[in-house]
Amino acid sequence: MTAPLFASVAPAPSPSADALAACLDDLRSLLGDRLSTAQVIRDQHGRDESYHTPAAPDAVAFALTTDEVVAIVNTCSRHGVPIIPFGTGTSLEGHIAALHGGVCVDVSGMNAILSVRPADMDVTVQAGVTRKQLNEYLRDTGLFFPIDPGADASLGGMASTRASGTNAVRYGTMRENVLSLTVVLADGRVIRTARRARKSAAGYDLTRLFVGSEGTLGIITEVTVRLYGIPEAVVAAVCPFPDVGAAVNTVIDTIQLGIPVARVEFLDENQMDAVNRFSKLSYAVTPTLFFEFHGSDEAIAAQAETVKELAAAHGGVDFQWTANADERDKLWHARHNAFYAALALKPGSKGISSDTCVPISRLADCVIETKHDLQQSFLKSTMVGHVGDGNFHVLFLVDPDSPQDIAEAKRLNSRLVMRAIEMDGTCTGEHGIGHGKRDYLTHELGDAMDVMRAVKAALDPQNLFNPGKII
Amino acid sequence: MTAPLFASVAPAPSPSADALAACLDDLRSLLGDRLSTAQVIRDQHGRDESYHTPAAPDAVAFALTTDEVVAIVNTCSRHGVPIIPFGTGTSLEGHIAALHGGVCVDVSGMNAILSVRPADMDVTVQAGVTRKQLNEYLRDTGLFFPIDPGADASLGGMASTRASGTNAVRYGTMRENVLSLTVVLADGRVIRTARRARKSAAGYDLTRLFVGSEGTLGIITEVTVRLYGIPEAVVAAVCPFPDVGAAVNTVIDTIQLGIPVARVEFLDENQMDAVNRFSKLSYAVTPTLFFEFHGSDEAIAAQAETVKELAAAHGGVDFQWTANADERDKLWHARHNAFYAALALKPGSKGISSDTCVPISRLADCVIETKHDLQQSFLKSTMVGHVGDGNFHVLFLVDPDSPQDIAEAKRLNSRLVMRAIEMDGTCTGEHGIGHGKRDYLTHELGDAMDVMRAVKAALDPQNLFNPGKII
Repeated sequence: MTAPLFASVAPAPSPSADALAACLDDLRSLLGDRLSTAQVIRDQHGRDESYHTPAAPDAVAFALTTDEVVAIVNTCSRHGVPIIPFGTGTSLEGHIAALHGGVCVDVSGMNAILSVRPADMDVTVQAGVTRKQLNEYLRDTGLFFPIDPGADASLGGMASTRASGTNAVRYGTMRENVLSLTVVLADGRVIRTARRARKSAAGYDLTRLFVGSEGTLGIITEVTVRLYGIPEAVVAAVCPFPDVGAAVNTVIDTIQLGIPVARVEFLDENQMDAVNRFSKLSYAVTPTLFFEFHGSDEAIAAQAETVKELAAAHGGVDFQWTANADERDKLWHARHNAFYAALALKPGSKGISSDTCVPISRLADCVIETKHDLQQSFLKSTMVGHVGDGNFHVLFLVDPDSPQDIAEAKRLNSRLVMRAIEMDGTCTGEHGIGHGKRDYLTHELGDAMDVMRAVKAALDPQNLFNPGKII
Repeated sequence: MTAPLFASVAPAPSPSADALAACLDDLRSLLGDRLSTAQVIRDQHGRDESYHTPAAPDAVAFALTTDEVVAIVNTCSRHGVPIIPFGTGTSLEGHIAALHGGVCVDVSGMNAILSVRPADMDVTVQAGVTRKQLNEYLRDTGLFFPIDPGADASLGGMASTRASGTNAVRYGTMRENVLSLTVVLADGRVIRTARRARKSAAGYDLTRLFVGSEGTLGIITEVTVRLYGIPEAVVAAVCPFPDVGAAVNTVIDTIQLGIPVARVEFLDENQMDAVNRFSKLSYAVTPTLFFEFHGSDEAIAAQAETVKELAAAHGGVDFQWTANADERDKLWHARHNAFYAALALKPGSKGISSDTCVPISRLADCVIETKHDLQQSFLKSTMVGHVGDGNFHVLFLVDPDSPQDIAEAKRLNSRLVMRAIEMDGTCTGEHGIGHGKRDYLTHELGDAMDVMRAVKAALDPQNLFNPGKII
């Protein structure tokens, strides 16, 4: 047995006050008033949507072009100053916290849709384009971009965190849908990770290497993604179940039959109670599945009827489906507000979200064991899940000023993560690692972390890019 | 502009005769007669199915376990001897040629199917399991593994080359279907690249990094892949077209409408002529599409009828479809024998296959311009394509002893590759780089190659693994 050969990651840069000042002077010459050191701007860029303690950068650089990003990277590199890319700040594991100070590169102004190619069903956008902006723009083309992580995130940010959401069971995640990226490297060079062919066996999969790298290997400035035809028709359905196992087993049967369900979301009884209160609805307060089907009128009616039978076989006898757009919107509106509905259960609370994903055969066990834990805790929580993928979230409702609440949420989450990993699942299905899940990642992947470290050391020898994240 | 920061790849190891002899002695102690230096065995392991000049390794090690692969890697590493992994030897770009000598690690004996999990629709196999062996094993489970590159390749080899084939338009390639890999690293450690969750945002995508790395970053010893339900029904169809553009535009319309066609294969008039002669059939000698649809009886009948209308709109009026298994087999048998049928057009010839893949909007132009080239050449060729993905192959029929034939094939292929790259496509949709397409890869990806080099240098500092491939 030889000793590990791999390089270690450099310590995060720690520029002197003079070096930092010189860096900011250079950036100011470059960007003028698009370099900001205003406290309010800095604070806003050090805080994401998570419970993690914010960490403001020393300055925020508002870039407008790939060339400007190159100049910023070269300047920061010269002065040894960390660089944190920023899209919309909607991350959930402290991804954009400036743990070691440095310059935040805000690409939200890089919001041009560069090229829509209907025949190829793809689009190239600047990294700051948000998914809602893109879909608004696409509306008349008959095409849409399906990935929906809830927040109106930027495509650069979604690529960086390998985002997904409710549609992933049918359309995949950013992993499957990014065709190519333009990336500024640590040495200031700009690469395209791939060309636009749907298939490629052209060497290492650099696109997938940067997707999910959370800004630690380079700065994504352009994203090419796949698009899909807007479905001819959409059917939504809702079905209450006697228990969690019945709901999850209905999902397993649905997936196994190859029914191309577009969404299948699980809400536990606490979450249904919250939804009822928040949206003044009267759903049964019991584990419930929300479905969506996309396709031709005949195809989706057939799909809905099949799932109705599967649900009934598991005791879900009140399966209601509708193709009516207003009713459908009402139904999904309830699901989409689940987060806010949950927070309203405990006024003044913040949500801490778990993000485990397990092989679907273990989903019922994982959910049931977790609910057992939750029931024995003083902390209020709800549960929602993209269960077609085996991914579910416990939303712990914490008083942000209560160390007890936060400690309890962490304790419960830790037990959940260990359970999921034990079941051959992952600590994160879609939120990413940031700095909140680094220990879990090591537990999950063991020595494979050294491969990540070697790649990081190779591509970012100074550890300039988003230091302290993932690795 | 700073200078490139990235490390370069070490030169291929060049062990002394003594070092090599010592290495083989150590391996013989380890493996006994499962280390072979017989010329016939060595020759067989240095030759793939391509036209490239074979290069035999110094020895072949037949490994049976991951632990043995670890021991082989550690031994070769200690003596500075190259290591070339080998599955079935069906690669097409000289992937397994021992360009710098060394030890071929044949994993074909690692052919255990380790765990089938029907509820999760996945399976873990040793790297030497072939796709036909796997599907034979799965037959009674109602599940199948769809990726079909033609050859009965090993799953380790398919992962290594990011293989795909006729089913990729519906089921994706190895990129989309590998969930996790067990890999022996250059320092002898064994990692699993991911757990089995369908979705994950857990750090860098190591699975996708090793998929397509052609044995240059580590040796894959176990593969976990997705499975799919055997479709309730299958319909096959064939339709002749007046010209290439009509055929390709029918495919574009089919994809854009979101029709989940399982296969859509293009054969040009030369290939149809070859098929007729070889299989004693009487298809029209004109550009032709072969289709396959998977699903429920009603769904696929509807799909076939829709595609029939699309084809008719482009002048493909003789669309014939069948759900009859015998007729279907006959039809696809003709397509599957296309390679041998083409070779039979010129007895004694070998085939040199191109592998470009372009965005589908450019497919008709690419095919038409290429056919124009081919028509002006003295060399006989045929064309087949997985056109739903924009991927097609020209099969150049060369006399292997004729330098003129080979030079002409290379000249035509080079023009085709440049054309495809100009159209934002790739030099290889599914065959990979090996040592045959390294120059094209550099042309295609430019500075992105330095990222590949940095990754290679980081994970294989001695350049032990399959030196001379990709990079």
